[in-house]
Amino acid sequence: MTIILHPNERVDQLPNHDIKIIQSPEVFCYSLDAVLLANFAKPPKNGKVIDLCSGNGVISLLMSRQTNSHITAIELQPRLADMAVRSIAMNHLEKQIQVMELDLKNSTQFIKKDSVDLIVTNPPYFQELPTSIKNPNPFLAIARHEIHTNLEEVIQLSSQLLKMNGRITMVHRPDRLLDILHIMQKHRIAPKKIQFVYPKLNKDANILLVEGIKDGSTTGFKILPPIYIHDENNHYSLEMQQIFANL
Amino acid sequence: MTIILHPNERVDQLPNHDIKIIQSPEVFCYSLDAVLLANFAKPPKNGKVIDLCSGNGVISLLMSRQTNSHITAIELQPRLADMAVRSIAMNHLEKQIQVMELDLKNSTQFIKKDSVDLIVTNPPYFQELPTSIKNPNPFLAIARHEIHTNLEEVIQLSSQLLKMNGRITMVHRPDRLLDILHIMQKHRIAPKKIQFVYPKLNKDANILLVEGIKDGSTTGFKILPPIYIHDENNHYSLEMQQIFANL
Repeated sequence: MTIILHPNERVDQLPNHDIKIIQSPEVFCYSLDAVLLANFAKPPKNGKVIDLCSGNGVISLLMSRQTNSHITAIELQPRLADMAVRSIAMNHLEKQIQVMELDLKNSTQFIKKDSVDLIVTNPPYFQELPTSIKNPNPFLAIARHEIHTNLEEVIQLSSQLLKMNGRITMVHRPDRLLDILHIMQKHRIAPKKIQFVYPKLNKDANILLVEGIKDGSTTGFKILPPIYIHDENNHYSLEMQQIFANL
Repeated sequence: MTIILHPNERVDQLPNHDIKIIQSPEVFCYSLDAVLLANFAKPPKNGKVIDLCSGNGVISLLMSRQTNSHITAIELQPRLADMAVRSIAMNHLEKQIQVMELDLKNSTQFIKKDSVDLIVTNPPYFQELPTSIKNPNPFLAIARHEIHTNLEEVIQLSSQLLKMNGRITMVHRPDRLLDILHIMQKHRIAPKKIQFVYPKLNKDANILLVEGIKDGSTTGFKILPPIYIHDENNHYSLEMQQIFANL
């Protein structure tokens, strides 16, 4: 089988894995946020998993080593969805991971409501629209800014897709915490666990991981131990090294 | 001046201070939560500060070394308010700290609405009422359980007392985070900063510190660096030692 690489694309290897992934600095490269979410998500052994706003499919690829569940990666941008399809083929994971190039607004036309065990999502973070100075690259702008979707749409859609007691796990920014908790509860998702990620000692958190349960009880909310990305020497912390090793 | 001590009362010294405080294991001893809140609160140099649910006055006493602000300590239980009055006299702080033995429901009869710069509060944490087995001691039960007041009342009252852009800082339990954020926003308090405290490495947070601003903007929400209480040898962590040293 020959996998076609387009100009400026490269093949990277995922941490601690034989899995290969197609990336392109001009279009999409996965970030640490995706690694952290794949570590946080804890997919069910067997079940139906959706990777919403899947980009080049990095989280689906990482999860494929943790679970036998079937994973559907939903991505709006044709160029990114195509990268995911080729990476999946390159790793012979077509049976486990399916890519749907789709606006998530339309996902309930293809996926049954109340049927999903787990949704993982790394949605666009930024509320403000990009200016031409900020992000002249349309691929990156759509992935990062709330241009074609927003937090409420992602959570509302997730709630429709999840079965009762199904879970949503999301990576986002701590400054959106109030919105996230409010919108989850508005759409029948009970926030259950949050883990904050800090760039290093004595810095404010810059990444938030959150898990909610559809129609879950309102008790038992937890703040998990913090994760530091770097140690005082700017090397990956011991926790991050363990996360890479356990993925 | 002679300060009367009642049976089973003792005089302790506050960390890193010449301040003395009357305590009693049967009635009220201050906890680490109070120390953490006094460190978190950052009172204004000059202003009007209220210590709501003040117990034996520990937070007011600690804050007296950080600020010239006038502090009013409001406490419902006569026995605890009386301990605070005697501790304040023992430290010659009568000019700076005033104790009001008062149900906080009635506090707006004595303190002008929209007049307070900072409220610090270590309210009762537990929603469920104590059973005779859980907490046969009425002093401790009232201080710890939502018997005579509750989270919403504390926050609503605080909002009434605070001037515009005045701050409330509170110590509470992480499992009440959703309630705290919801109730603050319901009563015109914009949550601004949260700091989570963890007993040690790899444990969930067990203490939450939160600051909100009355009529504050909804942007700029932050998660401050985590605090660990103990290190791996079960000694106080470096951060905690610094907190004790800086109080």
